[in-house]
Amino acid sequence: MADAKAQKRQKFEDVFPKLREELLAYLNQEGMPQDAVTWFERNLDYNVPGGKLNRGISVVDSVEILKGRKLNDDEYFKAALLGWCVEFLQAFFLVSDDMMDQSVTRRSQPCWFRVEGINLIAINDSFMLEGAIYYLLKKHFRSEPYYVHLLEVFHDTTFQTEIGQLIDLITAPEDHVDLSKFSLAKHQKIVIYKTAYYSFYLPVALAMYMCGIPHAPSSPSPSSSPSADPYALAQSILVPLGEYFQVQDDFLDFAAPPEVLGKVGTDIVDNKCSWCVNTALALAGPAQRRVLDENYGLKDREAEARVKALYEELGIRERYAVYEEGAYGRIVGLIEGIPVEGMEVGAGDVRLKREVFKTFLDKIYKRQK
Amino acid sequence: MADAKAQKRQKFEDVFPKLREELLAYLNQEGMPQDAVTWFERNLDYNVPGGKLNRGISVVDSVEILKGRKLNDDEYFKAALLGWCVEFLQAFFLVSDDMMDQSVTRRSQPCWFRVEGINLIAINDSFMLEGAIYYLLKKHFRSEPYYVHLLEVFHDTTFQTEIGQLIDLITAPEDHVDLSKFSLAKHQKIVIYKTAYYSFYLPVALAMYMCGIPHAPSSPSPSSSPSADPYALAQSILVPLGEYFQVQDDFLDFAAPPEVLGKVGTDIVDNKCSWCVNTALALAGPAQRRVLDENYGLKDREAEARVKALYEELGIRERYAVYEEGAYGRIVGLIEGIPVEGMEVGAGDVRLKREVFKTFLDKIYKRQK
Repeated sequence: MADAKAQKRQKFEDVFPKLREELLAYLNQEGMPQDAVTWFERNLDYNVPGGKLNRGISVVDSVEILKGRKLNDDEYFKAALLGWCVEFLQAFFLVSDDMMDQSVTRRSQPCWFRVEGINLIAINDSFMLEGAIYYLLKKHFRSEPYYVHLLEVFHDTTFQTEIGQLIDLITAPEDHVDLSKFSLAKHQKIVIYKTAYYSFYLPVALAMYMCGIPHAPSSPSPSSSPSADPYALAQSILVPLGEYFQVQDDFLDFAAPPEVLGKVGTDIVDNKCSWCVNTALALAGPAQRRVLDENYGLKDREAEARVKALYEELGIRERYAVYEEGAYGRIVGLIEGIPVEGMEVGAGDVRLKREVFKTFLDKIYKRQK
Repeated sequence: MADAKAQKRQKFEDVFPKLREELLAYLNQEGMPQDAVTWFERNLDYNVPGGKLNRGISVVDSVEILKGRKLNDDEYFKAALLGWCVEFLQAFFLVSDDMMDQSVTRRSQPCWFRVEGINLIAINDSFMLEGAIYYLLKKHFRSEPYYVHLLEVFHDTTFQTEIGQLIDLITAPEDHVDLSKFSLAKHQKIVIYKTAYYSFYLPVALAMYMCGIPHAPSSPSPSSSPSADPYALAQSILVPLGEYFQVQDDFLDFAAPPEVLGKVGTDIVDNKCSWCVNTALALAGPAQRRVLDENYGLKDREAEARVKALYEELGIRERYAVYEEGAYGRIVGLIEGIPVEGMEVGAGDVRLKREVFKTFLDKIYKRQK
């Protein structure tokens, strides 16, 4: 099982060098100076591969489920290319978020802008990671009938993520603590816009487009009624799923043992607008609120320990267990809204199946890291 | 005449508030917190209008020339919207370039990232200016047959501009002078990629798409043969024109009296990879080269004066006069490659006319500011 997973990952990773070569070939063919080509090459290698690749691989998984069979070489390459485009988008966000947050490390190495000689040029480097997406889509999907839909779903989710990032930045600036700006409602907006759309809806929508699933004739956008449009249906499940994922992420940052999580949580000292602090704020009496106001967001281990003790006192673990069961149940209910035989979509033989969403949910439910 | 120009500008400016309202309405309708909507509003107002608007207005001018008549209200709005999208793109570049260059002022006000409370959030603000383009295009052009071409020309020129910015950043970092990295060939790459595509080709290509001018059947990209594809033809004229414009800009930074130019040139102290220094490097003997190596890029008025004196000694003014006549002549020749009656394009009645390009050239030739 673990071996199958590693093989799947390896096969996906093997596509990256080809995309990298195509991008570098473009710069070379345009006669760019060698130092610029080498710079872009380093940018790609440092920032695009090396993550968990869950988002990218989920495009391939979804295409396989929707088609209900193994993919041929051309289909695999195209699905993986779309998956890598999600990883390029993520790299664009991470390189720039790390600058805005003044983070130190990412994926166990220094953040790109902290690498010797990079500094503020990382801003333009992040742009080029985004720009690469549209170069690759044009090169490989230009003649597909769903090409314009691919472009639009990247545009839409990029803008949504940027809006989510804005709310996060002004609600929880790293250097100024003001818990009166926090609320569970704001937290929900941040996680849906900053994470759920691009991490959960985007990969599945790309897979659906690649499989030729049409929009409902009168529903050109996923904000249409879920009962009519398969993309609206997918979004109505994947956005709550992404929200659940991020709440869990926030909880694990506080509650998971570092040796299991693989990193030490820093949400409290970093003044993050986490589900935990927002839940604590909703539960706290005046004295407890004072503990939060006086200790949250400080670069101080004792202050952090006081916040953690308060979380325990307020029963955040139990609250989370209740949240998780509720979220799981609601999402299962949403998935069961799809007929067992799949949702009939358009004239083709591809059906939108429960399994697409179940696969995601199973990966997330009660995860420990 | 000056009054007609002011009226034209005013009419174009009057479209901006409508686009701004549409963007803010989107955030409001998605239930975004009020402080995030207000932040985006300030970002838009501070960074998008307020420039010379030449790029944006040139879309409207080009549509009028191509149609050969005044535009009706709907046509005017659409042409102006495309023009504003070029201005949004420019705002995206300027906000981020100013951060990377650590600039102080832009359009006679502090650079956006220097405004109290903004700082690194300006990175995400620049992204949102780019994101706004695709929101507006989708809202207004989604059902047009040329919609996908609009998206592609924005993608292509954005990536080209980012590549140009990369070469510029690594060739001429503000804080490290190394003139051995400079050359006229590199300067040409920088100005074409960083400026010419988005400032000259993009506005005209947008106008051509809006007028329904088709690509040659076998030429889906403007890198095709100019004789076959009208977009390739337009590009083959507008890229040299943009190059000439930027060389002139570089020359005026050195040579124009500040009271005429409206600002004090800073290319020498800022270590800019300008046409002037590259020409000087090509002409300089060993002793003159030493003057450049020892004085260029220093924040020192006397060093700057020594570089300027060397420019005079090397006859940069005369070199520029020769360059300008040559560039003008070559571009006139390219324009005269278009038949007097216009280039026949597709089945429609719109023809690609010399006047589109002449209008640009006339605005630029021998300008003093």
